[in-house]
This record gives sequence, structure tokens and C-alpha cells, in this order.
Amino acid sequence: MGLPKKCEINLRRKYKKGSLNKITDVPGVLVGQITLNDDKNHVHTGVTAILPHGDNLFKNKVSAGVSVINGFGKSAGLIQIEELGNIESPIIMTNTFGVGTALNACIKYMLKQNEDIGVSTSTINSVVTECNDGILSDIRGMHVKESDVFAAIENTATEFDEGAVGAGRGMCCMGLKGGIGSSSRILTIDDKEYTLGSIVLSNFGVKGNLRIDGNLIDTSKTMSSESEKGSIIIVIGTDIPLADRQLKRVAKRATSSLGRVGSYLGNGSGDIAIAFSNTNIIPHYSEKAILDTRFIHDSQIDPIFEATVECVEEAIISALYHAETVEGIRDKTLHSLREFL
Amino acid sequence: MGLPKKCEINLRRKYKKGSLNKITDVPGVLVGQITLNDDKNHVHTGVTAILPHGDNLFKNKVSAGVSVINGFGKSAGLIQIEELGNIESPIIMTNTFGVGTALNACIKYMLKQNEDIGVSTSTINSVVTECNDGILSDIRGMHVKESDVFAAIENTATEFDEGAVGAGRGMCCMGLKGGIGSSSRILTIDDKEYTLGSIVLSNFGVKGNLRIDGNLIDTSKTMSSESEKGSIIIVIGTDIPLADRQLKRVAKRATSSLGRVGSYLGNGSGDIAIAFSNTNIIPHYSEKAILDTRFIHDSQIDPIFEATVECVEEAIISALYHAETVEGIRDKTLHSLREFL
Amino acid sequence: MGLPKKCEINLRRKYKKGSLNKITDVPGVLVGQITLNDDKNHVHTGVTAILPHGDNLFKNKVSAGVSVINGFGKSAGLIQIEELGNIESPIIMTNTFGVGTALNACIKYMLKQNEDIGVSTSTINSVVTECNDGILSDIRGMHVKESDVFAAIENTATEFDEGAVGAGRGMCCMGLKGGIGSSSRILTIDDKEYTLGSIVLSNFGVKGNLRIDGNLIDTSKTMSSESEKGSIIIVIGTDIPLADRQLKRVAKRATSSLGRVGSYLGNGSGDIAIAFSNTNIIPHYSEKAILDTRFIHDSQIDPIFEATVECVEEAIISALYHAETVEGIRDKTLHSLREFL
Amino acid sequence: MGLPKKCEINLRRKYKKGSLNKITDVPGVLVGQITLNDDKNHVHTGVTAILPHGDNLFKNKVSAGVSVINGFGKSAGLIQIEELGNIESPIIMTNTFGVGTALNACIKYMLKQNEDIGVSTSTINSVVTECNDGILSDIRGMHVKESDVFAAIENTATEFDEGAVGAGRGMCCMGLKGGIGSSSRILTIDDKEYTLGSIVLSNFGVKGNLRIDGNLIDTSKTMSSESEKGSIIIVIGTDIPLADRQLKRVAKRATSSLGRVGSYLGNGSGDIAIAFSNTNIIPHYSEKAILDTRFIHDSQIDPIFEATVECVEEAIISALYHAETVEGIRDKTLHSLREFL
Repeated sequence: MGLPKKCEINLRRKYKKGSLNKITDVPGVLVGQITLNDDKNHVHTGVTAILPHGDNLFKNKVSAGVSVINGFGKSAGLIQIEELGNIESPIIMTNTFGVGTALNACIKYMLKQNEDIGVSTSTINSVVTECNDGILSDIRGMHVKESDVFAAIENTATEFDEGAVGAGRGMCCMGLKGGIGSSSRILTIDDKEYTLGSIVLSNFGVKGNLRIDGNLIDTSKTMSSESEKGSIIIVIGTDIPLADRQLKRVAKRATSSLGRVGSYLGNGSGDIAIAFSNTNIIPHYSEKAILDTRFIHDSQIDPIFEATVECVEEAIISALYHAETVEGIRDKTLHSLREFL
Repeated sequence: MGLPKKCEINLRRKYKKGSLNKITDVPGVLVGQITLNDDKNHVHTGVTAILPHGDNLFKNKVSAGVSVINGFGKSAGLIQIEELGNIESPIIMTNTFGVGTALNACIKYMLKQNEDIGVSTSTINSVVTECNDGILSDIRGMHVKESDVFAAIENTATEFDEGAVGAGRGMCCMGLKGGIGSSSRILTIDDKEYTLGSIVLSNFGVKGNLRIDGNLIDTSKTMSSESEKGSIIIVIGTDIPLADRQLKRVAKRATSSLGRVGSYLGNGSGDIAIAFSNTNIIPHYSEKAILDTRFIHDSQIDPIFEATVECVEEAIISALYHAETVEGIRDKTLHSLREFL
Repeated sequence: MGLPKKCEINLRRKYKKGSLNKITDVPGVLVGQITLNDDKNHVHTGVTAILPHGDNLFKNKVSAGVSVINGFGKSAGLIQIEELGNIESPIIMTNTFGVGTALNACIKYMLKQNEDIGVSTSTINSVVTECNDGILSDIRGMHVKESDVFAAIENTATEFDEGAVGAGRGMCCMGLKGGIGSSSRILTIDDKEYTLGSIVLSNFGVKGNLRIDGNLIDTSKTMSSESEKGSIIIVIGTDIPLADRQLKRVAKRATSSLGRVGSYLGNGSGDIAIAFSNTNIIPHYSEKAILDTRFIHDSQIDPIFEATVECVEEAIISALYHAETVEGIRDKTLHSLREFL
Repeated sequence: MGLPKKCEINLRRKYKKGSLNKITDVPGVLVGQITLNDDKNHVHTGVTAILPHGDNLFKNKVSAGVSVINGFGKSAGLIQIEELGNIESPIIMTNTFGVGTALNACIKYMLKQNEDIGVSTSTINSVVTECNDGILSDIRGMHVKESDVFAAIENTATEFDEGAVGAGRGMCCMGLKGGIGSSSRILTIDDKEYTLGSIVLSNFGVKGNLRIDGNLIDTSKTMSSESEKGSIIIVIGTDIPLADRQLKRVAKRATSSLGRVGSYLGNGSGDIAIAFSNTNIIPHYSEKAILDTRFIHDSQIDPIFEATVECVEEAIISALYHAETVEGIRDKTLHSLREFL
């Protein structure tokens, strides 16, 4: 499961990629995963956890924005990001029917870390996102356990696998095997280097529509799928000091990446993009009411937008490149793009 | 716990109330509750379940709209209401840290009822709403169990208690004991009688700001509370044929009710209003692609708006009227408004 | 037209009012007006201009947010406020059919002041808001001229009249004579005094629903009006350093004020609230891409929210208090609240 | 100016195009234009008017939705579309500083047609959209006159030119000459044929990013342009019975088309998509409060989404194909794509 190292993808790049070419190139960002694979019981699912930084997220929230590209989805925690412009918990990816369990686990994790929550201060907003992996996995079995979520959080590191791993184990993208993909870009602003990265849980699109670098890929021999029932979760992280409004704008640009790879934003696809900046920290407690922060002049934001579109496009293609063929429930098989090519 | 019958509240009414003066006056709407009260372990919480109608909600969805009045909240299922304009599950109210468990229970309930979910058709969007009852209850203990949610759904009927019951057991409103309140109004449109009702989980506001029928109530002797850390969940149901856009507009009018009773929509208050019409049914499966429906001409919607404002205001006051005094964790006591008056 | 000095209104105040008790108590904010009153031709309309500060607004934009409380309205310039979080022009109030002319005038005013616009840099977003004064004025005659808008901008000062003046000349509120009203509040944050003020163009509500300080006012003898066809424009200014997201939150709180004075947010009422902070300046040109700014910790924002609700409520009542009786087209007369009381 | 007949573009099409391959293939939709071209005074601008149907639009409104893809724009009339889900006027396209004049003209046009507006009934919401053509035209001169708008409306027909005509005269797209483009698709639903069409005012993108059918076009020799200062207005019309919520969803899909042709949704690009259905008519006056309407089951909407993405992509490319080279102010020349290829 997973691949030893990142495959090299031939995509035109206007912006330089980071050394890992993953979201973890952004200083502080960590990713951890648990893959559940049990052929006998048709379990092909998992959990992917993203930590915007390695410290206490409740005490040091990160600025954030969200774009609900298509709201046919069951992700939790989004409306508070919209209202307050921050994230104060790990970001969990899992399957649609694992959201409740992941919420419980995420709350328990945060409670353990913060004895003040629910006693002397407010509660905690956990961000749990999902896609439907029912095409390969026994989703009705609700196989994700709280311990899996804890393990994914504990596993977090800068290195992580892509493809049919973690929450991506059972996902389908463009009629092929989807899953977890990631990419990063380096940007220079005011003579300083910054990193922007993305990680996707890719489960969207219909057979025959995939475009790589603009070229339509003939996938006529892959599994048939009449309608787009999938979803995609896109998480974008950066150390560029961006305001929450700007992070929402960045998140929105992921829609352009979806267009590039061949999505028409299908009815049943819960397409959600979340963006955070772990430079713009909002402390939970502050002695002073009025705080200093930084943001980019909007007139200088275009390279960030363009790099985002490029980076999310590559993360989606990377998920396809790294995903191995998986056989699942009801004799369905999803083929690896690389095998296919 | 709970009161044998509905108290009569002296509020000016421009619109006639229904026979129960509860949301269950709307034909088909059912409400069920479970109250968890264990003084020894400081458990003062519960579950309230609202069924927009008594049939299979997944197969026969109700048109719906939502207004996120203040998004400092952790409710689940809202973005899909916004995207698709419907609700396809029970609406669950519980405490903030019960959302994950309520989600799991709600999913299991729907899976049992619908063998096609996650196999031959899409997944299910469960609507779970919450307020923070940590002021009285050991919220960190996460005491709500899936069995409590099943029981609340099974308990659903047209009669139900108001006050410190169900999800409202531990709630605080305006420095007094809050909880569950409900009210209804009758409207005549095109010579036909319709009903609009509301139910609230009332947990918002600060001491000293309560207004009943416009009059400021002196609550200076109640529990001190410097900031508004609560929330309110408002569910409005009707049998008037309203389009989802119109239901969103109706939901938004609840903000005016909050203003009337003295709220300034505090930072920490997750104020969410959901409205549904159980006349405008959207079938999950349909042979025909194009369906007939009905809606009200927007130029005729003002009485519905005004009745909504009146009805939600009365539901909030009704929650206060029916709530008994409750002693909770850390020696906090929240007093009954009626005792207080 | 207009009144020599501000009337004293008996409203409970939790927060201290500024010395003028107008939005111009906020340092830098200026207001100017032109009243068009021509009985023979049934012209009862005008223009009110608000300058967030007295310098070049295009070169030094103010942070801003907007809340579309009810979008049955024709205001221009709002979507760019939402996207960029700033205002870069005067804010103009006028009648519904004066928006085009006010836009033209505002553009010309900004072009004259900025030779780079449309040549070496982008265009300009003008904010023009409106209410329908057709009840008293020959609105179809489109009597507002560009010169009126220029004059209103040139008239800007810290002193200005309230009532049936400027854009408020022909407005109707709660079946009585509406118009321009203003109020302000002083807040202490981190030991420093700040000011928050509001100005309203008040034209909403139906006869019989007016509440002053919670008390229903018997207006049964006023002009009959079956439905709410009006609107209200609410502009809130402050020198508190607020982020655009926070200004949007502040703007939203005006809905609570509308609830307090008796509005149910009628279908036909274009209710728009705009908030700006003239401390948080965004320069049009900047050598550095990344800029410093300040914002308030959201946990400390509640007094600002509460003061906003109180201040907007008082501005609405102040418009009614100051408005004189006006006779208009089709023999309609709108009575002054003070005469009425 | 303009071309005698539609050029044939080699784009892959999954859906059949209409006979004109323009938005006017949708029964009832009419388009009219006025091109202002005066080399001596550097005037290269114009007006394009779209009538959703040929009858009285105020009396028979069309269902509509809008998606503000990027709100750096000055279009008027959008918030009422969002609130009420309909359009009640012509849709005007012009240059950024022509919005005020176009608003005035549109109001006058509607007043002449409807003697009740502003007397016995409400006012009128005019939809005026814009892009910045200052790159070629003396935009500061504000050369569009009300008579131009009247003429464009009077010119409406099923045949109309594409390219550097109407509002598109001075527009720039991807460093090449942009302008007006259109396309249409035929869909079969419940055994009945329907048409969906789009028209764009195309003024977005940066040199070097253009993709046609996925292939990057080498435009390195075109005019230099560092940042995306343009915009695109996208209008989608159909006779499929769609609810306003669904039309908003359709409008949103245009973002995917933008991604396909190479846009990253630049900061300065006011990207607005409007969709209407002229089958779902909302009468201004109605004897009955409750009306019948039709909508498509959302599970059947995917072909409409996919056809929209394809149709908008083709409209953008069509604008480029049809646009002739234009020389403008400050010695700028924008080259025709066809010349270029």
C-alpha cells in the first residue's frame, strides 16, 4: 500500500515545486494516515489527518477560509471557519459515514490536550471532511473507529504516502482509482520565499473526461460510471501571511483546477476547498483586545492564485498517478492510471 | 421534568395560534425527546428529534432552507440543505459534543430504513444541530449515547414537553434557565388554512437583556454571565408550499425575533435557523426528470414573514416560561423565569 | 427643512453617546446632503453623501463589510466590498431611480480626483445605495441630477441635519415620515476610547408595528399601508481597527436593531447594512506586498456588537423624531412622529 | 465590424449545438448591439442587450440565478436576482463607466413600457453588467449614451455578430482581442428537446495562458500584460424548466469553463455568471397567491451542467475567433486570434 517515493509527473509548471512536492513542504504542516484494508469484509477505507502546525491548535488557531464549490457533502465544521476565519483543530479526511466517529475522536483529542475546553472556555470546532467510498468499500459497515483517527493524528509527519492510502483507500476519480494526492509550490514575495501546498482526497469526475495537462485521456475501457457521485476535498496550506478573506479567495481558485482536469462540478460531488495560513496565528487567549497581523496587498495576490490552480491540479493528477489498482465490494475494480497508461 | 401542559403566555398576537401552539400543529410534524438527568454525575443534557413528516424522509425529502445567523456553531448537514434545498433526515438537537454520536445514530437509523443507501444510491445527509450546555452539564463527559438518539426518534409524537427537557435540559438563556420552546400560527392563503410552527433550542443572550413583548425584564439577581457564549437553534416547519429560496428567507426572519427578545447576536452564539415545508416533497427516485411543484408569489409572503417573527419570539419566551430551575455542575444554578417573576 | 439641533430621545443607553450623537463623531467621517423639494412638481427627494474620511478614498481605501439583510434592492457597488473588503469611494444615498445618475456623478468625482484611474490603474467601485421614495415624490421623473450629487459631496461636514432631509426627504417609515437619522457610541478597548456611529436612510416597516424602546406605538391613525414596500440603508462607521470579516459581522447586527423597532424584514424592503473602519486603511499603491494591519480579538467584539444594535436602533428612531410632516404626490401626507405623539 | 457569419471552431462537443450555435437558439431569447468606434477620439466601446424573452419582462419575469465567481466588478442588479430568483429587465452589457448611463436608460425603457412602476407598484431592478475596456478605449470619456442603450435594445433579434462588437468592442482576452462570443447546446429531457445557450463579454486572462480544447496556445508575441485586470460576464439562457436555485448552480459551472480555457480567476477580474430560464415565468401580478411551477430533479441535472461547461467554453473561444484586430488608445493594438494562428 502506498508507494516508496513520489512519482515524477510530467506537468507544465510555471512555479517551482517544493522539495517533497507535498503540502508538508509548508513549514509546520504535518500529515498522518491510517489505511483500513480488509478484503474479506470489503473494507477499503481510512483516515487522513492534516495538522496546520504541530503545536496546540486550539490555543494557536490558524487563519482560514473555505469555499463550498458544490455543497452535496457532509463535511463538518465549515460554518465556523466561515464566521471566524480560523481553524482550531486537526483537519480530518475520511469516508462519508465516518464523520460522526471522526468528530468524536477529534473532540476527545482536543479535550485531552486542553483541560479548559467546556469548563472555563468555549467548546471546540472540529473540521471533518469526507468523500463517499461506497463504490469499493462496505461504507454501510461504518468501519472507521475512533482509534483509527487517533492513530492518524499520531502518525503525522512531513513524509506521507499518496494514492490509495488513508482516507483515499476506496476513492474513485474519473472512473479510475483515486485517493490522496499532494503537491507544493514556492513563491517569492518581498524578496522572501514562501511555500504553498495542497492535499486532495480525490473522488470525483466521470469516466472519459480526464485531462492531464489539457490532453483528454482515453479511459473508455475503465469501469463504467454514468454519473458523478463522488466528491473532492481540497486542503491548501501556506506560510504566506494571508487574511481569512484572502484564504477564502485562494480556496475558490481550486474550482479552476477542477475545470482543468475535466470536472463539470457534478451534482452529486461534494466539492469543498479549505485554505489556511499557519503564519497568521490567532491566539485563543490574549491579554490585549487589539492584535497585530499581516496580509498581502490584493493587487499582489495573482501569483498565489495561479500557483494554487497549478498546485491543486498537480495534487489531483498525483493522486491518480500514485493510486494502485484496488478490488472492492460487489466485484468492482478500480484501475490505476499508471497501469492504464 | 417538563410540565403537564402548556403555560399560557401573555404576548400580543397578530396571528392566530394553533390548537397545541407547537410546531406539531403543522400536519405531519412530530417531535420526540430524551432527557438525561443525573445529578451525581452532573449530567443535564438530552436529545430532541424533529421529524418533518412521519414517512421515509430519504425517499420523500422536504423542501428546506437555512440561515446561518451567526456561524460560531458546530451543526452538521447545513451545506447540503443550502445546495439542494431539501432535508432528507430527522433534525436532531443535542449538546455540542453530542454531534458526532447523533450523526452516527442518525446515519444508522436511516441505513436501517433504506437498504439502498450506500449500495445502489447515494449516501444520506443527516441534520444535527447543537448548543453548548457546559454551564450546567459535564459536557466533556460526552454522555449522549446513540441509544438516546434512537429513543428520541422513536418517542416522536404530536405532544411533547417544553422547557428544561430533551436537548434543552442544560441550556441557559438570558441568564435564566433556557431550553426547548415551541409555538405555532395559522395563516389563510387563497382561502385555505395553513400552519406554520417553530421549535427552538434556546441557549443565548446575556443577563439583563431579556425583553418580553418589548418590556425589559429585570434579571439583575440571576446568575452572572459576562458574555454571550450560548447559541440558539431555530427550526420552522410549515405546510405552506414554499420554494427552498423562500424557506431560506423565512429562516432569516428569525433574526428579527432574536432582536425583539433582546439578543445582539453575540460573538459566541451559534445562531442557526432552519425552515422546511412538508408540502413540497422531493422524491428521491422519480421516473420523470421534470417535476411539478408549487410556491407562493413573493408579493404575498409578508404575512408568513410576520407570523414567523411572532412565532419564533413566542417559542423563545415559551422555553423560558416552561423551564424549571436546574442545579448543575460547579454549583451553578439556573433559575426558572416563572419563579423569578 | 431639517431641524436646528438634535432632539433628545429617551432611549435606554448602555453605551455612552458621542458629543454630536451622530456618525460624524467618528474622527474623519463627514456627511453632506442636498434636499430637493418642489411641491409644484411633486419632487421630494435628495442625496446624502458619507465620506469615510476626508482624504482621497481611492488612494486610501477603508476596510469594509456588507450584510444584505434583504436583497430586494438596487444598491450598486456591494459585490466588490464583499470580495475585497474595502470601500474606495464616497457612499451615496438617494432614491431608487437616482442610482444611475449618482453612479455617473460618483465616477466623475473620482476620475477628477485621480488621473490614474482607467489609464494606468484599475477602475473605481462607487457605492450607491437607495430607497424608494415614490410614495411622496415623482420618482418616475428621475429628478436627481449629477450636480446634486457633487453638491452633497461638497457639503460634507461633521454637522448635518436629520429627518426629512437629503436622500430621506421623501421616505416613509412605519407609516410615518421617515428619513435620515444618526447616532453614535463611545467604547473603551485596551484603555483607549473609540467611536462607532451609524447613519440610516429609513424607509421601512408597516403602520402599527413601530416600537420605541420596546413599547408599541399606536399609529392606527396614520396613513394606511398594507405592505412593507420600503427599505433601509444602514451605514456604520468606526475608528476601531476591525478586519473586513468583522465589519461584515458588525453590519449583520443591524438586523437585530430592525427587530427591536418592529420590522419583520418585509419582502419588498431592500435592507442593506454597510460597515467600515477608517483606521484600517488599505493603500491603493504599496511598495511592499505584505502589509501590517490590526484587528480585534473576536472574543472581545461583543461590546461592539451590542453598541451597534443600540446605535442603529437610535438612528432609526432619531430619523422619525426629526422628520417633519411632508405632503407629497397623489395627495399623500406622511406625518411627523413628534406631531403624532 | 463583426463578421458576416459564424466561424466554425474545432472544439470537441459531447452535446449537439443549436442551428445558430448562439444563445438565440433558445426560443424567445433576443440579442441586440451597438458598437461605438471612433478612432479619432479613441472610442472603442459599445452596448450589448440580451432579452430573456420578447414580451414585457417586468410583467413576466424569468427565473434566474447568479454566481459571483470573483466580485472585483461593478455590475448592478445582482443582489435582487439572488434574493428573488428572477430577472425583470433586459440584461445590459457595457463598459465599466457606462453602468450608470445604462441603468438610467434601462429604467427609462422599463418606465415607458410600464406605467404602473413607481406609481401603483414597486420599482424595477435593472441588470447592467460590465467589463473594463480601458486598454483600447478612452473609458474616462464615458462615451456610452442612453440612446445607445435604447438602440441596442431596439436592435434585438435572433441574429447578432460576435467578436469585437457591441460591449465587446474594446475588450481584451488572454492578451488577444476579446469581445462577444456565443454558443448553444441541445439537450433531450423526458423525450423533449430543450436548448441551453450562452453569451459572454470576454475580457479576462493573461497572455500565454490560453488553452483551446486543452492545448496551450503560444501567444508569446502578443501584447504584454502582467496581471489579469479584465473580467468576464457570462449569461446563460435556457428553456429548460429550472428553479432559481438550480439556475444558480448552472451559473456556477461556468467557473469550470474558465479553468478549461486557462483562467486562474485573477484578482482584478470581475467574473460574473447569470443564468435564466424563460420557461419558468413569474408574473408580476397574480390573482392567486400560490402558483404552479416546474423544476428538474437534481439527480438529472448533470447533462445540463456538462453542456453548460462546454457551451461557455465554446462561447469564450468563439469571441476570440470572431474578434478582429483593433488599434486603440495609447497606441495599443490587440490582435485577432485568427490572424495570430
